[in-house]
Amino acid sequence: VIDIIMECLATMPDMPVPFGDDVSAIDLDADKLAVIKTDMLVGKTDVPPGMSLRQAARKAVVMNISDFAAKGVKPLVLLVALGLPGSFTEEDVRQIGLGLNEGAREYDAYVIGGDTNEASDLVISCSLLGTCDKHVLVKRSSAKPGDFVAVTGDFGETSCGLKILLEGALASEELKKALTEAVLMPKARLREGLALAKTGALTASIDSSDGLAWSLYELSDASNVGFIIDNLPIAPEAYEFAENLDLDPLELGLYGGEEYELIVTVKPELWEKASTAVIERKGWEHFKT
Amino acid sequence: VIDIIMECLATMPDMPVPFGDDVSAIDLDADKLAVIKTDMLVGKTDVPPGMSLRQAARKAVVMNISDFAAKGVKPLVLLVALGLPGSFTEEDVRQIGLGLNEGAREYDAYVIGGDTNEASDLVISCSLLGTCDKHVLVKRSSAKPGDFVAVTGDFGETSCGLKILLEGALASEELKKALTEAVLMPKARLREGLALAKTGALTASIDSSDGLAWSLYELSDASNVGFIIDNLPIAPEAYEFAENLDLDPLELGLYGGEEYELIVTVKPELWEKASTAVIERKGWEHFKT
Repeated sequence: VIDIIMECLATMPDMPVPFGDDVSAIDLDADKLAVIKTDMLVGKTDVPPGMSLRQAARKAVVMNISDFAAKGVKPLVLLVALGLPGSFTEEDVRQIGLGLNEGAREYDAYVIGGDTNEASDLVISCSLLGTCDKHVLVKRSSAKPGDFVAVTGDFGETSCGLKILLEGALASEELKKALTEAVLMPKARLREGLALAKTGALTASIDSSDGLAWSLYELSDASNVGFIIDNLPIAPEAYEFAENLDLDPLELGLYGGEEYELIVTVKPELWEKASTAVIERKGWEHFKT
Repeated sequence: VIDIIMECLATMPDMPVPFGDDVSAIDLDADKLAVIKTDMLVGKTDVPPGMSLRQAARKAVVMNISDFAAKGVKPLVLLVALGLPGSFTEEDVRQIGLGLNEGAREYDAYVIGGDTNEASDLVISCSLLGTCDKHVLVKRSSAKPGDFVAVTGDFGETSCGLKILLEGALASEELKKALTEAVLMPKARLREGLALAKTGALTASIDSSDGLAWSLYELSDASNVGFIIDNLPIAPEAYEFAENLDLDPLELGLYGGEEYELIVTVKPELWEKASTAVIERKGWEHFKT
């Protein structure tokens, strides 16, 4: 679908960020960018059973914030266009409002406008705006052979959480709570993304919202490099869940989604600096060709 | 719905444009604003029978451009979040892409990013970004007693066009073409809005997308002034249509919608300047209290 649409579009000359990166941008002046992003949550496909409307609205914000995090750009404000089923009550609408505000304020942003409509599905379309110095924004397309790849956290929890919510997979109460929480209350790695971009150590970055494997593929494709992965950080909770159900923990970590870690490539000579900034425990290192 | 949501939201300090105006904005520096707007088109409610997908997509862009026009701000780029029914073909998607590009390029803007999803309805959520000098942006809330009210064109055509498309109202082929065209291929008054704002003659402005009467009410409410309307410019085609069907042309003009004229208030001493810029033939004048 994206390819068909893109074929129809005239390309803006001198785009500071190429089409298909996590965010879009325009030049404000020689040094500054205005950065924007839109991402739509649709109830039917993006809201698993067990997720409240408040959580869904919060998630709609967080998934946009995560893209800004990946680029090292601080989001300032957001607009929200809502499509609401006619059956929604005032309380339903209030829960959505609370979730939107919660998602924004957790990351120090504000909802400053929007639009409401009636629709068959719940639709929450968020648009984020921020500004940054041009040299700060980390694209997908500039990883170089020899860089290290690192991530901001462990993978697999959301895969397990979704199996519990969607398929009724069994787990102990404690495990169930941790794994479903990862799905219901995702966190964007904004603090980490801003700190990493500030070091100047990153060459490329993406968030893992489409799953670790797919996001690695996207990064590889955009930068035209390959990756050698030595060490895959899987969450201990995912190992435990996988063991109980005789599942492959690596598969849970690689082919999940709705997981908002950052995947970054780092200049080898600045690895220490980047590690110190945030990622010391969790990085995995490798070569690219 | 908007009130319930707004009650839930923390208010950003020092918002340069108040919540509820046609656009939102943030300060870039002491003199400049980044201006954003989001507006969602939903197939079920915003696409009348007879409107093609290409026209629907174009309209989704135009209705956002119109809000920028009302504020005197040039839109530079837009993002588009799409919700597409699973039944859509590649050709359907292509028609949407073509319509989006058409709407953007007509106003010298570019689509630079977006997001696609599956949804039950067709949903096209556009977000626009532009920048402007702070003193240029014309709010809803600053009309003053004694100002003149003026509009950029005649009203009533879309009301008639919708009666033809939705209710099968009869009209001559020629009339039918003109009136349905107003619905299917709406134009945003961007050139006029930019020229008017540039004169410095405007005190307030809104687009008429919610209908002339409602938009006047909104302007009145935001500025806390009343309006005296001496002359209501109704399109000759609407008069003709109304006469044939024994309808009230004023009602068609006042209570329509999806009509993208601008309604502006003008400093009396700069009336000539504003008129010369664009609105000489069509203005209507009055007093406010």
